[in-house]
Amino acid sequence: MSTPDADHYAPEARDADSTAPAAVQGNLFAGLPTTAEIPAALAAGERFDHLLQRPGLRLERIVSTGQASPTGFWYEQADAEWVVLLTGAATLRFADEAAARSLQAGDWLYIAPGRRHRVESTDATRPSVWLALHFVETAAIALLMNPPACCP
Amino acid sequence: MSTPDADHYAPEARDADSTAPAAVQGNLFAGLPTTAEIPAALAAGERFDHLLQRPGLRLERIVSTGQASPTGFWYEQADAEWVVLLTGAATLRFADEAAARSLQAGDWLYIAPGRRHRVESTDATRPSVWLALHFVETAAIALLMNPPACCP
Repeated sequence: MSTPDADHYAPEARDADSTAPAAVQGNLFAGLPTTAEIPAALAAGERFDHLLQRPGLRLERIVSTGQASPTGFWYEQADAEWVVLLTGAATLRFADEAAARSLQAGDWLYIAPGRRHRVESTDATRPSVWLALHFVETAAIALLMNPPACCP
Repeated sequence: MSTPDADHYAPEARDADSTAPAAVQGNLFAGLPTTAEIPAALAAGERFDHLLQRPGLRLERIVSTGQASPTGFWYEQADAEWVVLLTGAATLRFADEAAARSLQAGDWLYIAPGRRHRVESTDATRPSVWLALHFVETAAIALLMNPPACCP
């Protein structure tokens, strides 16, 4: 969410291992930094854990510890994103809105493909856990689910 | 999750309104029953809120307040499910496992298509909030994302 994720720019790479989930169970709140570990976690950068990966579908946990999008950087993703902040706090800005939105635990957003946005801030005193679902948003999928009769 | 959801058995119905999300923002922890309201919520049944609905993809919030799957009932879903318990507590049983699994906040599970399972119990003292992602799990999607050359 808040720093550029290389996966956003390499869809072919992120779908490379799409035959099985890396894990079939886990805990979203496991492995979070303690308060004392927050400064080191901030310096190390956000943590990304892929929970589910399929063609056109990727679910990931992101743990922010005070990071924000780089100055002047805007996400502009080809895929749609459904994202929820589960713990912590953050401010998220859409380029087409005058002010940033303040997000608290439980707040979720749908981000349409191509809608420019950036994370203005995340809580620097406790972990902010995001759950982000990236998916291909196109009417083409509906067509592909019911392929035309030309295909044998 | 814990009582039979009519949507599980009517895929054509659940995909009927797939052109746009019903809402583009919300809070997963909004509208939960208070402790005093739990008995009435238990009697009323689990609450299901669809957050995102697309062909082959459905994201929903489920709020349990002490419900469990009916005696002898097993879910056996054609779609895959990725589900996380965000608050509360529950026990979930797979038919192919001897004992039920105890779930706490943050615990997530991947449930393969057709894997029989049931919710043995949910916390009757506080709301258990689930986030469930149902999705079509088939190699066919990969093929459909790259349709054969026969199609114009």
